[in-house]
Amino acid sequence: MHVTSEQRLDGDVLEREFTLGEIPGILWTPQSASASAPAPLILISPPPLGLRTMYPRLSARARYYAAEYGFAAATIELPGSGERPRWPALEQARADLRRVMEAGEPLTDEIVDALVLPVVDRAVPEWRAALDALLALPEVGGPVGYEGGLISIGIRLAAVEPRIAAAGLFAGSFVPRAIVEEARRVTVPLQVLLQWDDEGNNRQAALDLFDAFGSREKTLHANMGGHAGVPQFETDAGARFFARHLKQ
Amino acid sequence: MHVTSEQRLDGDVLEREFTLGEIPGILWTPQSASASAPAPLILISPPPLGLRTMYPRLSARARYYAAEYGFAAATIELPGSGERPRWPALEQARADLRRVMEAGEPLTDEIVDALVLPVVDRAVPEWRAALDALLALPEVGGPVGYEGGLISIGIRLAAVEPRIAAAGLFAGSFVPRAIVEEARRVTVPLQVLLQWDDEGNNRQAALDLFDAFGSREKTLHANMGGHAGVPQFETDAGARFFARHLKQ
Repeated sequence: MHVTSEQRLDGDVLEREFTLGEIPGILWTPQSASASAPAPLILISPPPLGLRTMYPRLSARARYYAAEYGFAAATIELPGSGERPRWPALEQARADLRRVMEAGEPLTDEIVDALVLPVVDRAVPEWRAALDALLALPEVGGPVGYEGGLISIGIRLAAVEPRIAAAGLFAGSFVPRAIVEEARRVTVPLQVLLQWDDEGNNRQAALDLFDAFGSREKTLHANMGGHAGVPQFETDAGARFFARHLKQ
Repeated sequence: MHVTSEQRLDGDVLEREFTLGEIPGILWTPQSASASAPAPLILISPPPLGLRTMYPRLSARARYYAAEYGFAAATIELPGSGERPRWPALEQARADLRRVMEAGEPLTDEIVDALVLPVVDRAVPEWRAALDALLALPEVGGPVGYEGGLISIGIRLAAVEPRIAAAGLFAGSFVPRAIVEEARRVTVPLQVLLQWDDEGNNRQAALDLFDAFGSREKTLHANMGGHAGVPQFETDAGARFFARHLKQ
């Protein structure tokens, strides 16, 4: 992990851009974090739109967590997003998605699988490697929360990575059938967001996914509106969920 | 409104038992409430099990609201519950419910209507009269929140009473079809609780009811477990919902 720039932000938050091999990332830590009082870490996964594009939203969220709740927060670029290289099968799947959406045709399982599964296969080991690097910093500690991004990445990461102690997921994108099966193996506490009128998603599929999770503690927060309309107050609800599970 | 007893509780909360005509009730106010700084009021409707039976839960909730958030809270006995007189049709409907439940037969619309509608018809004017009396106290102010109890009472009260500015409802009991129609006329912000495996309720009916509400801001909080298993953390989530809408 190589820090490429750092700046101190309002609210006594330190923002560090870093690279982990070829992968760019950002870490936010509260001033109060130290080797003797490490800040619990929340991984904030971006949607596959690129870190630069998502920076304002990711940064606002991370700074809120750091300044109001004393959490550290970190994100890394997803494979095939931002300035990271594409691969032909992903480009093909994205072209298929656009074609089907423009034609108003139903999305097939094949397109969803081709769009999501290779990204999950690549991303999950990267997030685990990022976790190794981040937890090696003396001012960053466990237990670790995960939130956001492509929900399929969060599902597999929560299922396979024992350092993830709680996850906040947004049921706002298509989930391959194979990943719904993996959801049954997730047992950590979950808070799942659902936009009731999400134009790009199927409400019943999202409710079925919520039902599938194996966690004993899982809470669904369904709000009115479309994909981009998650209410501002859910940021605080997310922080309080993590505070219940990550603070010791 | 006639105060019959009062006591000061831990956390600087004043608890007053009162009667409003023949209806017993309880009011909790924070020490800080005064004529120059009246406390926003939350009406906490009990389930139809009697105020004495429900006192520990109602009181814990009201004291939390008062001590942590500076809200006043009040409750009154439902018609046909506690020591209030029954009426023959209600006794018949309750007997029908027990018979059907014990036989494992499906509950008919007729039984639900007979069980719920006459209680709603009586209760809603009583809650409005209680509101008149409570808001006449100098230390109690608006805007007013409503929560709990028989959800059908909350639906009609929120639909017809303009002083209700926000409602926290528990989709945990049978709702007559006529009341689902009334839900379309509710427009205040809502936070609706749903127990995912509620043994006495139908999940799909609850989701359909949530869908029916006319409110632009409505949030569903679905949690695992049966009817009595609403997680402790929802008390705080409820308080924060009211704090968003009732604090000025």
